[in-house]
Order: sequence, then structure tokens, then C-alpha cells
Amino acid sequence: MAADWWARDDLFHRNGRLIFAGEDVGRLASAQPGPLFLYSAVRIQANIARLRAALAATGCAHRLYYAMKCNRFPPILRMMAEQGTIGIDICSPDEMDLALGCGFTANNISFTGTSVANRDLERLLAQPDVHINCDSLGQIRRIGERQPGRRIGIRINPGAGAGYADNARLTYAGQRTTKFGIYREQWAEALSLAARHSLEIVAIHFHVGCGYLTEQLERWGEAVELAAGFLDDLPQVETVNLGGGLGLPHRAGETPLDLDRWAATVGRVFAGRGVTIAAEPGDYLVKDAGLLVLGVVGVERKRDTLFVAVDGGFNLHPEPAHYDLPCEPVACLVREPDASLWERVTVAGNINEALDLWAEDHAMPPLLEEDHVALINAGGYGSAMASNHCMRGGFSELLI
Amino acid sequence: MAADWWARDDLFHRNGRLIFAGEDVGRLASAQPGPLFLYSAVRIQANIARLRAALAATGCAHRLYYAMKCNRFPPILRMMAEQGTIGIDICSPDEMDLALGCGFTANNISFTGTSVANRDLERLLAQPDVHINCDSLGQIRRIGERQPGRRIGIRINPGAGAGYADNARLTYAGQRTTKFGIYREQWAEALSLAARHSLEIVAIHFHVGCGYLTEQLERWGEAVELAAGFLDDLPQVETVNLGGGLGLPHRAGETPLDLDRWAATVGRVFAGRGVTIAAEPGDYLVKDAGLLVLGVVGVERKRDTLFVAVDGGFNLHPEPAHYDLPCEPVACLVREPDASLWERVTVAGNINEALDLWAEDHAMPPLLEEDHVALINAGGYGSAMASNHCMRGGFSELLI
Repeated sequence: MAADWWARDDLFHRNGRLIFAGEDVGRLASAQPGPLFLYSAVRIQANIARLRAALAATGCAHRLYYAMKCNRFPPILRMMAEQGTIGIDICSPDEMDLALGCGFTANNISFTGTSVANRDLERLLAQPDVHINCDSLGQIRRIGERQPGRRIGIRINPGAGAGYADNARLTYAGQRTTKFGIYREQWAEALSLAARHSLEIVAIHFHVGCGYLTEQLERWGEAVELAAGFLDDLPQVETVNLGGGLGLPHRAGETPLDLDRWAATVGRVFAGRGVTIAAEPGDYLVKDAGLLVLGVVGVERKRDTLFVAVDGGFNLHPEPAHYDLPCEPVACLVREPDASLWERVTVAGNINEALDLWAEDHAMPPLLEEDHVALINAGGYGSAMASNHCMRGGFSELLI
Repeated sequence: MAADWWARDDLFHRNGRLIFAGEDVGRLASAQPGPLFLYSAVRIQANIARLRAALAATGCAHRLYYAMKCNRFPPILRMMAEQGTIGIDICSPDEMDLALGCGFTANNISFTGTSVANRDLERLLAQPDVHINCDSLGQIRRIGERQPGRRIGIRINPGAGAGYADNARLTYAGQRTTKFGIYREQWAEALSLAARHSLEIVAIHFHVGCGYLTEQLERWGEAVELAAGFLDDLPQVETVNLGGGLGLPHRAGETPLDLDRWAATVGRVFAGRGVTIAAEPGDYLVKDAGLLVLGVVGVERKRDTLFVAVDGGFNLHPEPAHYDLPCEPVACLVREPDASLWERVTVAGNINEALDLWAEDHAMPPLLEEDHVALINAGGYGSAMASNHCMRGGFSELLI
């Protein structure tokens, strides 16, 4: 049996049973009918530690925030808040309230939102210690009108970006104009608006794409250099926030992001400039620390295709259907170790839409009704984006 | 000012103000901060009446079901249940409970699901009068094991389909094998399984695609003829369920589905065969009876693009971002009637994703902060599929 590309020391088959974070995944799923998200606290901590080490290697002061929008399961948030080595990145007032409720102090909360309404601003500004990055001229003006003198950040758009597999849906800055941040063309106006309201610009922020891997690092580095150019007018800036977007492998053959090279890029551009480097990853910290475990409800050939029907659909995790970011299905019980005897199957969810497929033409061992399938890399943008489409939205979550 | 393609007798501008179902949309929205779905009871009734008339013109006995998955706002469901001229199509046990709770009797409920789990079946079978269409051999067998002798339907897959704009995501039967229904290749086995468990096949069901318009009718008709071929082995079938999928115009230049031709197709194939024709539309009944009204939080040029930022994102209605089914934005207050003075804008939501745009390069009158924009054709698969992504999932709903 060839080594599985996704296997690692906390995720592997032993005697045919899938083990994750020391637990037998099929056994946990059997105890809990219906879709189950499993998260590993140890894996999240390891991901945080790896990224902190890379930030340290940049030679810059540094600060890490977790992007709550990726996964807001309260036990994960509370664990991070208690640990105290990571702040939290939020994008809405409700996320702020949840962060505070889970134990993050206001000075560890950084807000970067878009299309921010006045009623949003009023809730955010009520917390003097929450940091706010402004995404538009209007937001700078409206904060200035309400709280002149406040310390703010500005999200800038360097006009260059990089996303997973160069997917345009995952690239947030680039040739095509996006809604995010302030471009060079409006930069002078942004500075003048801030000055008019005595707003102190203490941070610049940029986030140029999602899921970039080593092959996108060169382009990402170009975007970083362009972003650094915005600093020249702002000697008082204390923090440069690199956003998130650090990717991880989704498919066989992909290799993990080269963090040394990532850190070297950051160091080359910012070391010695006296700024603190911030990063606010989401997926990088939690995605590979999560599985979505589904029950097999049937295995059946339809015309030329062998379907494995499972008891959860794309409404529980939209990335495979809508973002071309697969969550590869893995059997929780492998009865047949010889992979040459496996069959190529389509794994189909329980939503009445043709696109509700977890994988197509995917080799899996023989499966039976009541078996379980684990979708790997399901820890980010799954439960957080789940809907109750077809009233099939129920699931459980467990932090191991 | 050129006539708006979407204008009709219950949706138009009067003195620059958008009127829907007799109400001033901007005024309703101002009274209710945050995203607001508005639905028109009269329009839903008119859509039902139009389709009932077309079914009557087929020359067949007929029955109409509403596809709850499209919009499950309880006041809409209760209105339909009270009216008593329409049954309800459900696809999950939770939908069954909601239908019963809203006043539909079990004999007016028809279930057609996919990847149906045993725990689903047990809930469904507890209602002897709920009709169940089986989507797989396994489902036939598992029902037979639990309730031999039950009257069932079978969802068949004619291997041909038709969807809006020939979009593959919206085509549920065709050259590519889908997860839905039972193909000709497995038909004999389905009949034999049913016979083995004394299940009485009283209905066949097919649903071959979503949103088809007149230009797809010929292909739809071919699928209907293929589906009719499954009847030859089943003289005892009482009902042929055509599924849903009847489309409506989403863009300027598209014309409404030619219902006369639709009815003629159905009549040609089924009249005189002694079967009742059922249909279970969703969008056709409620989509154009709904608006999603959002507040303008800013109007601002970024590089070459004028952005209109609004206070709700694609998580409230995924069709524009994920299905290429636009919900065209319309100003609730037109201060400038001369459309030659309008600007081309990008309407952007408040979710931190690049794809969260309601429209691009779309002509709109000048807009100001605190104005409102109505997204038309938002009555179907909007609120029902909404998520709390970024904790931006709040909205209100109102049935006028």
C-alpha cells in the first residue's frame, strides 16, 4: 500500500483504521450519528508554533492573529485566548462580540472588514482598544467624524496578488480591480482624509490572496514589495500586517509552503525598518487540523459510475463544490489494504443539487453501508460557512 | 428612460421610488435596519395560478407541489397550506416536520431525496401518508425491508437534461452520469427489488435540470419522452412527476418560459395515458416574488472601478456568486431619471471574499450612503441557503 500523501504523525491508518490526534475516527463517528467535525488541538498548536518560528526568523518584531472567519468553534477560540500567544482577526461586529466572549481582550483584537456600515462602526468604535484597519476612504472619513484622533490602520491594495493554483476566485489583489483596500491612486486622498480628522495611521494591512503555496511565493513577494512602498510616506507606522492566505497542500503532489522562503521574503523587505510584522492566517492554523466525518448510506453503481452516498452535503463545507479546493475523502476503515483492488468512485452528498459531490473518480477501498468517510483538510471555512440548505445543516463538532 | 426589462405591474418605479406589491421598498427597508427579504403573496399566487392553468391545458389530471427547499419562510408555507390548492415537495425529514408544522397534511407531502440515511427513512416511514420517491436501488431495498407493501415512487434518470443557459451545474441528467435517480441500465433491477418487497410503484419522478427557458424546451421535451419510456413496464403507475426546474428570466433580453409550449409537450407525451401529471416547481413560484433589499454603505472609486458597497453579501444569497444566476440590483430611489447619466458600477457585499460582488459593470443611477438597493429575483434559494459566514448572516423577512 503506497503511503498516503496526506498521512502524518497524527493522521494515518493503523490496522486499517483511521487515527487522528490519537483517536479512532470511525469509533468517534459511530458514537455520534450525523455529520461530525473533528478538530485537533495539538495540530492547531503545532501550526501556530511553526508560523511563530518563521516570523521570528524574519528578524522583525512580530505578532500573530487568528482569522476567526475560518472557524469560530468556541472551544478553539477559547483555547487560543487562554494560551495568550495569539490575537484574533475579526471582520464583523458579531465576530468582535464572540471574540470578547471567548476571552480575547480588546487589545488583542484586530478588525479588517469591507462594506462596513455605520451601525457596524458604532459597535466597533465603542471598544477603544480594538484595532481597526480601514478598507476604504469612506471608512476613514466616517471613523474620523465619529472619533477624531483614533489610532487606525489602513488596508492597502498593492495591485498584485497570489492565490492557490492561481485561482482568480482566491486572488484578492491583482490586475483586476477588487473591492479590497486602498490603491496607490487613492493613497494621497486617504492620507489627507486621515490628517483632516487627526487619525493616527499606525498600521498598514494587505491581504492579496488565499491559499498560496511555494510556487506562488515569488508573486506574493512582489506584492509585498509593492505594499512596502506605501510605507515611505508614513514614518509613524508601527505595524505591517501581511494578512493571511498562507496555503497548504490540497492534492497529492503538492508540497507544504516553504516557510523559510516566506520568512526570508518578509525579512528582506521589512527587517531593519523598525516595524512589527503581523500575520493573520486562518486556514494555515486550522484547516489541516480538522476532519469532516460522514456516514456511508449506500454504495451503488449508476450507469458507468460507482457512487458512495454519504449523509452530508456541500452545504456543510462549500470549498470542494464552489472553490475547487478539495477535501479528499479517506476511508475510516480500510478492509482491503491492497490499493490495486480499490475502485474509483464518486462520493456524493445528500443535497438535491448536481454539484453536491465530494470527489469524482477517486480511488477508495471497498465501503459498506454504515461505514464512515473522513474528509481531510476540513477544519477551515467548513462549519463556519455551513448553511441549512434542504434543512440538511445539522452537524456536531468536537475539539480533541 | 428606457423601460426596465424586469418591470411588471407589481414591480416598477413611480416618481423615482421602487414599488413592489404596492409597497414603497425603500420606505420598508428604512424601517428595518439590515438586510431584508421582501416577498409578495399576490405574486406567488399569480405564479401558482399561471402554472395550474398550464397544467390544466395538458389535458391530463394534474397536481402541483411546491419545492420547499427553495424558500421555507413559514408565512409562505402557511399561506400555501391554507390555500389548499398545492402540496409540498420535501427532501429531508426536517423539511417534513416543518411542512406538517405549517399545516400541510401528510397526504399532500411528497419526498424526493438523495443519499437518504436509514435514520432519515425511519422518520419518513413513520408517516404512512407521505409519498416517497426512491432515488436509488438501496433506498428501494431499505424501504422494502422496513415497510413491505408500501406504495412508492421511483425517481428515474432519463439520461438527458436541460438547465438554465445550458449551465452544467444546473443540469441534473444528461451525458455525464449524475447521482440522481435510476437509469435505464438499473431499471430492471429496481423493478425486481420492488417486487421482491411487494412495494407498489405508483409514481415515477424525474427532474432533469434547473431554470430551463423556452430555448431549452426542445431538449427538455426529449428528456420527457425518454422518461415516458420507463412507464411501459408499469401499467399501475398513477402519477408522473415532472419535477421542477421551470425557469424565469434573469437577464435583460431573456423572455419568460413559453408555458403553452411546455404544456403542449407534456400533453403530447402523456395525454390519454391515464396518469396524473405532477410538477414541483420552486423558483417558478417564488423567485420573482422576492427581493433582497440592502443598504448602501458607501460609493467610492477604486482605481478604475466605481464600487457601491452594500450591507449584505453572497452568504445571504449564493446564486450570483456561485451559480452565475444574477440578482440584478435596482435602486430603490432614482434621483436621476435620465439613464444616459447613470454610471457603470460594481455592487460589492460585506464579506471578505473577492467573489462577493452582486453585479459588475452594471448601470445604476447615482447613489448615496443610506440609500437602498433591491436585488430582484431573490425569492428562491436565497434565505433558504444563507449562511452565517463572517457572522454576517443576519436578515429579516417579510411577506407582503
